[in-house]
Amino acid sequence: MGGAALGAAGTVGARDLLGVGSTESEAKPRARNTKRVDVAVIGAGVAGLVAARRIAAAGKSVVVLEARDRVGGRARNWRCGMPPACDCGQTFVNNHTRVRALAKEFGIEFYPQHAVATGQGNDVLYADGQRFQSPAGGPLNSRALAPIIADASIPFHKLDSMAATVPPKTPWEARQAAEWDAITVETWKQQNTLTDFGRWWVDFLIFLVGLTDPNKVSLLHALSYLARLGDGKHGTKEALDFIFLGDLVLGGIQQLPDHLANQLGRRVVLHAPVRRIRQRHGRVRVESDKLNVVAKRVIIATAPSLNALIDFEPGLPESRAQLLQRYPQGNMYTFAAIYEKPWWREKGLTGRGAGLHPIYAVLDYSPPDGSSGRLVGIGVGASQARHARLPAADRRRAVFDNLATYLGDEARKPLKTLERNWSGSVHHDAPWVDDVMGQWSRGCPGYLGPGIWTSYGPWIREPFGHVHFANAEHATSYNTYVEGAIRSAEAVAKQILAEL
Amino acid sequence: MGGAALGAAGTVGARDLLGVGSTESEAKPRARNTKRVDVAVIGAGVAGLVAARRIAAAGKSVVVLEARDRVGGRARNWRCGMPPACDCGQTFVNNHTRVRALAKEFGIEFYPQHAVATGQGNDVLYADGQRFQSPAGGPLNSRALAPIIADASIPFHKLDSMAATVPPKTPWEARQAAEWDAITVETWKQQNTLTDFGRWWVDFLIFLVGLTDPNKVSLLHALSYLARLGDGKHGTKEALDFIFLGDLVLGGIQQLPDHLANQLGRRVVLHAPVRRIRQRHGRVRVESDKLNVVAKRVIIATAPSLNALIDFEPGLPESRAQLLQRYPQGNMYTFAAIYEKPWWREKGLTGRGAGLHPIYAVLDYSPPDGSSGRLVGIGVGASQARHARLPAADRRRAVFDNLATYLGDEARKPLKTLERNWSGSVHHDAPWVDDVMGQWSRGCPGYLGPGIWTSYGPWIREPFGHVHFANAEHATSYNTYVEGAIRSAEAVAKQILAEL
Repeated sequence: MGGAALGAAGTVGARDLLGVGSTESEAKPRARNTKRVDVAVIGAGVAGLVAARRIAAAGKSVVVLEARDRVGGRARNWRCGMPPACDCGQTFVNNHTRVRALAKEFGIEFYPQHAVATGQGNDVLYADGQRFQSPAGGPLNSRALAPIIADASIPFHKLDSMAATVPPKTPWEARQAAEWDAITVETWKQQNTLTDFGRWWVDFLIFLVGLTDPNKVSLLHALSYLARLGDGKHGTKEALDFIFLGDLVLGGIQQLPDHLANQLGRRVVLHAPVRRIRQRHGRVRVESDKLNVVAKRVIIATAPSLNALIDFEPGLPESRAQLLQRYPQGNMYTFAAIYEKPWWREKGLTGRGAGLHPIYAVLDYSPPDGSSGRLVGIGVGASQARHARLPAADRRRAVFDNLATYLGDEARKPLKTLERNWSGSVHHDAPWVDDVMGQWSRGCPGYLGPGIWTSYGPWIREPFGHVHFANAEHATSYNTYVEGAIRSAEAVAKQILAEL
Repeated sequence: MGGAALGAAGTVGARDLLGVGSTESEAKPRARNTKRVDVAVIGAGVAGLVAARRIAAAGKSVVVLEARDRVGGRARNWRCGMPPACDCGQTFVNNHTRVRALAKEFGIEFYPQHAVATGQGNDVLYADGQRFQSPAGGPLNSRALAPIIADASIPFHKLDSMAATVPPKTPWEARQAAEWDAITVETWKQQNTLTDFGRWWVDFLIFLVGLTDPNKVSLLHALSYLARLGDGKHGTKEALDFIFLGDLVLGGIQQLPDHLANQLGRRVVLHAPVRRIRQRHGRVRVESDKLNVVAKRVIIATAPSLNALIDFEPGLPESRAQLLQRYPQGNMYTFAAIYEKPWWREKGLTGRGAGLHPIYAVLDYSPPDGSSGRLVGIGVGASQARHARLPAADRRRAVFDNLATYLGDEARKPLKTLERNWSGSVHHDAPWVDDVMGQWSRGCPGYLGPGIWTSYGPWIREPFGHVHFANAEHATSYNTYVEGAIRSAEAVAKQILAEL
């Protein structure tokens, strides 16, 4: 696929696409024009842009309708004003072949986490009120944690054995699907752990892989997550190693959608939330606030909870409509801090920690040249939701109390900070609050509660007439990762191109 | 409150309001005007209309924006073409003081179920593959069911004891809220029943009170339902007696919203789905497809899943935004059949039955004069969703197989039939399929899965700036009933009037 050739097709540069000089709140409804294309893509996140690029490269006309004033969706950098740019805790890259291939094409580089590259320093875990320090290399690989890893081994081994029986593409067909989909992870945890540390490890797993609180998630969903880690891999150790051993993106993951959008040029239309989709006589009419599109095929490349906002005529099949009411996105909250240097390393710490609330995990996001020290703290689940309700000054204090407990009081003196709530709408109650997520993110990533997979699972990727669905949540491998979004989009684009 | 005085304020009759000569699919976006009022109400279901009437009666200006081509929401009659009109299985009226007061004002009458009025005939229950017949009067009051009621008594007594400790207005404050919200009803059932019949009774309770499948519902939510039955009543027996002993509405429940809308006249605007709500400088701007409204206060009187479709600026508080992603509506399906006479009575049957799938329950909806025989079959949960995916002829066959099994082969020869799917969009694959629910119903009624009450419960009725929320799902008594919708609306209207 020729990136240059594709890029030439667009006459608007990336800065224009990113809506410089305009904000979501300034967008006004305008008179609508109608455009005819082969394929309309809804959502200019990684999935939508990858699908559109495939379609365009095959010589078909395509338009991407994006609700916001920017592309990238949840693949969003922190505009910290200090190079290099970085993202905010959402991206670890491992054996992610599609991400690496695209990155290579665009000249995007990766770098190992400092702890992984050097093997130096200790991670900090707070488990059941106790502080543990374990050498870098992933907690499950740590001898220092041996006394409490033993408590993880029984439940994790059980989870792995169960996940091995869950078909990645059809979790509802697992032999024990009905049984596992009727209970929460919390229920399973209470029945299958013997110690407080054992329960701590199950919570740790569920929180860290972004699946929200154990009391909300279906056991079958958690198992399907493990089963869909990717390319034949499944298991609790892989899930945690993905994070603890994964590479970071130099310059941040947002470069990926920015490059893709640059290639697509004017095919990407911002400020265009889609309100209505009508299918009639073999054509699909897509109505957005900015323009209307008549297309032969449509790809909805948004998170499920955003798909739910669109009116369909005729209506969505009942089972998909019901699924969309039941596919929420998890709470996620990040608080990033930049320091003059990665001071924690001098203290023998990796900068990584987990187990406190509201900042359940902290990661070292410093650039590879050590030109600054960067920490990203992450909050998840109900404790994040409680935290988000506090006034700005109280939130900040709670975050720095956590960071100081993990790593030391030096944490309290950052040069810059950024707070981002992925889970709901943003209230600018302090200057360090980011302005980008809100209405069009709703959280990160999606999960399913009990009873949903077995009732509505078969409808998750089923096209509706000429409307198809692609996103990280629907991915059958690397589920909820950027890699999953790309693979989901490529599969749908391939299917559509075979039909056109 | 003067109904006549209010009625005079409107100059458009009920037939115009009901959108005769126009359908949802014909509605086109038009140029938008801006209207200024004291209060804008979103949704012309019973809650919205009751709230608007209160506001208007207090001398304040009000407009009701309704997405559909008709008022009434889920309070919808079956247009069967044979008098008297009737609704479709959604309304039983007991000690519902507000429904009865409004009905009296409008001259709407109630009548007892034939089985209750006469005490004659047997209900039919299929439990664990066996057929049971029990004299009318509610299954829990039946001596004939004594052999299997014993199996219900232990779990039902436990549920009642637990429900008694759940505060109706603040279920998340129950002492054991965290424990009960972490498990599904299914999990609890498996742990607290000793026999297949015991498990059957728990399913029966959950299905019949409209709470979807036991594997989807939080135990705390089921308990909160029992705790919110109304006016100090709570318990499994009351929940079932509400249905088995409740009165029916002569002419159908839709008369209630029709009369209310008639009084409100031109204040009710149809074809006006609301897309965006902006709060600024103490005023709320509501943008719909039909017109824009600037109001001092707004009442959102839709089901939670429809509230989720609206863009807010500034955005909804995170916890409410998260709650709305997690408040699905249950599957519900009704299949009604009219016969020349209530033939089942001659066979010693009440016409009521339960326990088969897809028609989990059947009810006798015949008019009190016996001028025709009417049955309404109801499907719920995942078995309904599976049923809805069948072709029309297969659905019809499955329904009549069930009705014939409950009551006899005479069921197979109806004069008229009507099929209605409340849970998703409607596909007109047969002439007997109703056309009214679809996009703007999404199911009936709402329920919460595990972990939601304890994470987001406090935000369920919390106003957002000048935007308030009222509906049957938010009711603190008679929850999910029309009575609950009225009480919720009256409480919000009172609160707003105190502020204006």
